[in-house]
Amino acid sequence: MDGRRLAAVVASAAAIFVAVALGASAQQKDSGPQSEPGGIRGFVSAHVATERELERKLEAVPDPAHAEAELEFLTSAPHLAGTEASRSIAEHLRDKLRSYGFDSEIAAYKVWLPMPVKLELEMTEPEKMALARPEEPIAEDAATNDPRAVPGMHGYSAPGDVTAPVVYVNYGLPDDYNKLAEIGVKVEGKIALARYGNSYRGVKVLVAEEHKCAALILYSDPADDGYVQGDPVPKGPWRPMSGIQRGSVLYIFRYPGDPLSPGKPMTDSRASTAVEGAFSLPRIPSLPISAKDAQELLSRLDGPRVPKGWQGGMPFTYHTGPGRAVAHLQVEMDAQNPVRTLYDVIGKLRGKTDDEWVVAGNHHDAWVRGAVDPGSGTASMLEAARSLGTLAKDGWKPRRTIVVCFWDGEEFGLLGSTAWVEDHETELKRKAAVYVNVDMGVAGPNFGGSGTPSLAQVVRDAAREVKDPKTGGSVFEAWQHQRKEKGGRAEAAPEVMKTEAAPEMGVLGSGSDYTPFFQHEGIPSLDMGFAGEYGVYHSMYDDFFWMKHFGDPNFVYHAAMGRIAGLTTLRMAEADVLPFDYVAYANAVENAEKQLEAAAKTQGAPLEFGGLRAAVAGMKDAATNAQRAAEAASVNGCERAACERLNRALVEVEQALLAPGGLGGRPWYRHTIYAPGTYTGYAAVVLPGVREALDQKNWDGAKREVRALEAALSRATKKLEEAAGE
Amino acid sequence: MDGRRLAAVVASAAAIFVAVALGASAQQKDSGPQSEPGGIRGFVSAHVATERELERKLEAVPDPAHAEAELEFLTSAPHLAGTEASRSIAEHLRDKLRSYGFDSEIAAYKVWLPMPVKLELEMTEPEKMALARPEEPIAEDAATNDPRAVPGMHGYSAPGDVTAPVVYVNYGLPDDYNKLAEIGVKVEGKIALARYGNSYRGVKVLVAEEHKCAALILYSDPADDGYVQGDPVPKGPWRPMSGIQRGSVLYIFRYPGDPLSPGKPMTDSRASTAVEGAFSLPRIPSLPISAKDAQELLSRLDGPRVPKGWQGGMPFTYHTGPGRAVAHLQVEMDAQNPVRTLYDVIGKLRGKTDDEWVVAGNHHDAWVRGAVDPGSGTASMLEAARSLGTLAKDGWKPRRTIVVCFWDGEEFGLLGSTAWVEDHETELKRKAAVYVNVDMGVAGPNFGGSGTPSLAQVVRDAAREVKDPKTGGSVFEAWQHQRKEKGGRAEAAPEVMKTEAAPEMGVLGSGSDYTPFFQHEGIPSLDMGFAGEYGVYHSMYDDFFWMKHFGDPNFVYHAAMGRIAGLTTLRMAEADVLPFDYVAYANAVENAEKQLEAAAKTQGAPLEFGGLRAAVAGMKDAATNAQRAAEAASVNGCERAACERLNRALVEVEQALLAPGGLGGRPWYRHTIYAPGTYTGYAAVVLPGVREALDQKNWDGAKREVRALEAALSRATKKLEEAAGE
Repeated sequence: MDGRRLAAVVASAAAIFVAVALGASAQQKDSGPQSEPGGIRGFVSAHVATERELERKLEAVPDPAHAEAELEFLTSAPHLAGTEASRSIAEHLRDKLRSYGFDSEIAAYKVWLPMPVKLELEMTEPEKMALARPEEPIAEDAATNDPRAVPGMHGYSAPGDVTAPVVYVNYGLPDDYNKLAEIGVKVEGKIALARYGNSYRGVKVLVAEEHKCAALILYSDPADDGYVQGDPVPKGPWRPMSGIQRGSVLYIFRYPGDPLSPGKPMTDSRASTAVEGAFSLPRIPSLPISAKDAQELLSRLDGPRVPKGWQGGMPFTYHTGPGRAVAHLQVEMDAQNPVRTLYDVIGKLRGKTDDEWVVAGNHHDAWVRGAVDPGSGTASMLEAARSLGTLAKDGWKPRRTIVVCFWDGEEFGLLGSTAWVEDHETELKRKAAVYVNVDMGVAGPNFGGSGTPSLAQVVRDAAREVKDPKTGGSVFEAWQHQRKEKGGRAEAAPEVMKTEAAPEMGVLGSGSDYTPFFQHEGIPSLDMGFAGEYGVYHSMYDDFFWMKHFGDPNFVYHAAMGRIAGLTTLRMAEADVLPFDYVAYANAVENAEKQLEAAAKTQGAPLEFGGLRAAVAGMKDAATNAQRAAEAASVNGCERAACERLNRALVEVEQALLAPGGLGGRPWYRHTIYAPGTYTGYAAVVLPGVREALDQKNWDGAKREVRALEAALSRATKKLEEAAGE
Repeated sequence: MDGRRLAAVVASAAAIFVAVALGASAQQKDSGPQSEPGGIRGFVSAHVATERELERKLEAVPDPAHAEAELEFLTSAPHLAGTEASRSIAEHLRDKLRSYGFDSEIAAYKVWLPMPVKLELEMTEPEKMALARPEEPIAEDAATNDPRAVPGMHGYSAPGDVTAPVVYVNYGLPDDYNKLAEIGVKVEGKIALARYGNSYRGVKVLVAEEHKCAALILYSDPADDGYVQGDPVPKGPWRPMSGIQRGSVLYIFRYPGDPLSPGKPMTDSRASTAVEGAFSLPRIPSLPISAKDAQELLSRLDGPRVPKGWQGGMPFTYHTGPGRAVAHLQVEMDAQNPVRTLYDVIGKLRGKTDDEWVVAGNHHDAWVRGAVDPGSGTASMLEAARSLGTLAKDGWKPRRTIVVCFWDGEEFGLLGSTAWVEDHETELKRKAAVYVNVDMGVAGPNFGGSGTPSLAQVVRDAAREVKDPKTGGSVFEAWQHQRKEKGGRAEAAPEVMKTEAAPEMGVLGSGSDYTPFFQHEGIPSLDMGFAGEYGVYHSMYDDFFWMKHFGDPNFVYHAAMGRIAGLTTLRMAEADVLPFDYVAYANAVENAEKQLEAAAKTQGAPLEFGGLRAAVAGMKDAATNAQRAAEAASVNGCERAACERLNRALVEVEQALLAPGGLGGRPWYRHTIYAPGTYTGYAAVVLPGVREALDQKNWDGAKREVRALEAALSRATKKLEEAAGE
């Protein structure tokens, strides 16, 4: 879906702070169960040589030519979720995994997934003009001349037929509407025109809905991902004026997956919720358009000049409206028979034990051809699977079962992954040690990752092992020097992959398939990829031509991504003691708690933090003891049963951080430490229950959430004590 | 000329710091010789009632209708310096002053002032296109359809005929060229294309010359004063795409005035310097063009994408070049017979004594019709003169002679004022107590001023007396609230009148006619005006239509400016004790000295500051004592002779701050505390001798300048001691 790496870019101040704080504390030292120099975190000394040998073999497999051929195949036609093309891609991926030695099957799920039958936008005043014009073909790139490409659309838009004056609402977020109210611009009953950026598009629909707008039009301003950032396609990697960002507007920050069957996949095509009651469905119609279309409307708005910071990159003075421009928007969906089938691919490389799983995945559905999103991730993940399969063909059997998944319907709201995770909840909670996600695997040369704090060192370790294609040093070193090298230009772009400019790890919000694993089930999760200058997100131009000319012309970053994903999976599958760093986690929680106290003080909230502070301190102590036990086990080795008990306890710490009843107002989200913010969209809010209650000035709610958080930390502490053998 | 209020906007960091520090210290309390509540700074109690009565009468005179009629007349035709039209305006102003009761004469000066005979710019590659196209007429405004308007030109451009590839150099300042060198773009022999803003255009020519560019083209980017800032004319007050900023490129930061007769006006049309030796003349040709013209060149540049912050507001990705675009530039001047006559207008209202003068002035020449620059200042100053004349007709005779001046040739480099000041040096040094400048008197509703620190309170006092047309409170109160009210939008514009957003006073750099008075002769000086959203600077669109629609449609700010200028002049003319605040001045110098030490430390300069610190401390003590003496005199009154001695000493403090030999490398600039920076252009550099020697890492020079500064402060201290009667 929506670039979880896009997510952290637009994180709330709180989330950003914690991301940095987390990075800082984790940077101080390589903590966690690493035995000695030359050792590998989580491996007893006696097993290091064998592991090194496996890694050497694994790293030799990923190959640019393979990745290129695979990406070319994956992007050879549009393959939208719910279409036959998506089913073919799933079958191809199933067969590929089988050819690599995996037991591979398709898991099909029914979802309520309406497709548009009419998407029309017309300017009716001051002159008539048909808008919602299609993306323009590029002469050099035949793939951009394809009638099969779905037009600019919003997944799960409400249907509607609206004629109303247009008002420009900047990014369409709460502060923007506050500013409009201040200068006396009324939006009720109007068609809001907002630019993409700074949050998830579904948030913008919700905010427009809350302000009683009749409809929302979203467009890509050239200031954000077009010519102001750099040369557009075909001269450069940025969005041309006719480019459209498609995307879902499902309220995934309430719950992702099929909107009519929250918490459990649909059985026998029967939904558990009516459309009218579905809490994740928008209530007003919305449509994405190109900057070229938006220019026709925007340049005809009267009303006040826009507030400071609202002017975009088009060559005229922006006004808020309303004024001369009136538009007619019509969205009609095939609501008669909108149940469609999704095809997840689940491939297993069975381990010596099937009681523990290491799960890795990416989605395979694309808005059009999706070279970066998701093709680069899929191609890299296939190289990782091919590498692991090669080891298996040589006679190796992993300690834990490796599960490689390719999800369908991610673009519409994490549909396929959510269905499968909900369907396998019990098994996953018992078996899954980790989920590794690689979505937009390669959009350029800048490696980055987000994840649960306990896994930051695992990513850094993998990045240390793999060579950076450009510099010849390690990916880790290149990652460290990114911020300096980039010269900061990309920093101006709000909706561009560019988060993890330093070796700090981001935190997980939402926007890709780790969400059901992490925020719903408490499975320690990671998300990784190489970012870059990427302006064609969710457009027809995100295709093989783009990758070949701009993103990764030699496919060397695809091979590197395959190595990192393969290595991470291998180590997690083989580790004697799972290399979770709970000291770093406890430090991150401690930092977040301090921020929370400061925020509560600023807001004058009557909250007591003594209990919470004590819970954090308890977790810190227990984490230190657990670390010591894990180190001892990994230095000395441990009895099979003892090791299993230890690993089990380590895995269950994250699950213990879930609140059984979920967060206030959105029970599907159960993680008490990280959630996507209701208004921040993809970006994570840290300690979300208390934070959001505070933001709403709901002191009673905040008190309840503080207690829930204390309880979660105490449960995690108990698990850590189990791990420490106490 | 060039908006001295434009100046402070783009001040160097040092200058900005001092401006703020100065403001801050001056804000702490109303210091200076003010006797008691209800009193007037500088007036003995017994005289306050009479003064109040005069002020009441004076303030009743300025009138919007008068100002409007006057501005309409002044802007009824283009009146460029050196033309018959300028002579007629001078005669009109002379007659006006006479009708107000002033003894008024024209002082004519010969200057070497070449006018263009050929100004051509053509794109020769990748396609042929004639550029240097004229400004486009606006249907609503007949004045913009006038063949008499001088085309886009640079006063004192070197002649030349150049064909070369074009390179975009951002603002064309030293750091910009450094960045180009870093990314490997060569500028030698090229035509540099720079945008206006961030410094005086003459500085940009010098920097291009230093980097061996063949020529310089300057254009107005819409990001700086066009549609990115707000709606262009005729919908709003900003520059349309065809608008051109004319202007002088004379190196006035070396010396202003006739370039061939530095330090003394030309006599018998004979210059003292040859063109080849004139230190203030550019050596490469330059030309200003519109954004519309620039777009043709800029959009055809190849080469690297521009560095961060260089992208302007036009709808494509900016590249540095060189590339496909090649231009042919030809500038031919009438160098055969370029001596022209300027007509300064000098009007006197003789005082009880003619031994002390209060001088006020503005220029009257305009690039085209000049409604804001200089018409609004001229019309306001005429209202001030009419008010003072009205008092005189009622039988009042000022204590000191009031001299009202209208300068010619300011736009080409302060030609008329410099000639007159140099011509009357001895008399001015003996008599002039203060020079009050009002150039761009009204461009909007935001009052502001710059000046010598000792006069900040005088401006604040006057602003307290006059009603703000919009708020009904005082101008002082509106001035205090400006920053908040403006919402900061204007802050984005580099070349817009917007400096004095708070009641802090700016410092004097250069760019208007106070320069010869202040920096050459050490006469305490002031500069004031109402700023606003003003994008048509030095274009054909700066006309009566603009003022009537945007700047001051009801001419109420013109009347207010007339009141402030009249009141300031009246008070300075009538004060028993001249209300100079040397404690504030000493504090400003102390702050600047601390900054200087810090800068020297950062640069590792081997400088000793003990002597300088002692000199500053001495000045502070002496200023406190002088203040005490002035207060005593103004409370108790003083004997006529004692009062004259005291006032004389107070006036001479500023003159004592001149270095007799001038600053290192530019002897014309003699003020040791403030000078326009060589690279900052209009903006002041504080403690300029030492500062600039430090910037050049010239340690010996810096040592000499420190000693010169110590000596100047000691001389000022001596004068302050004289004032204190010590």
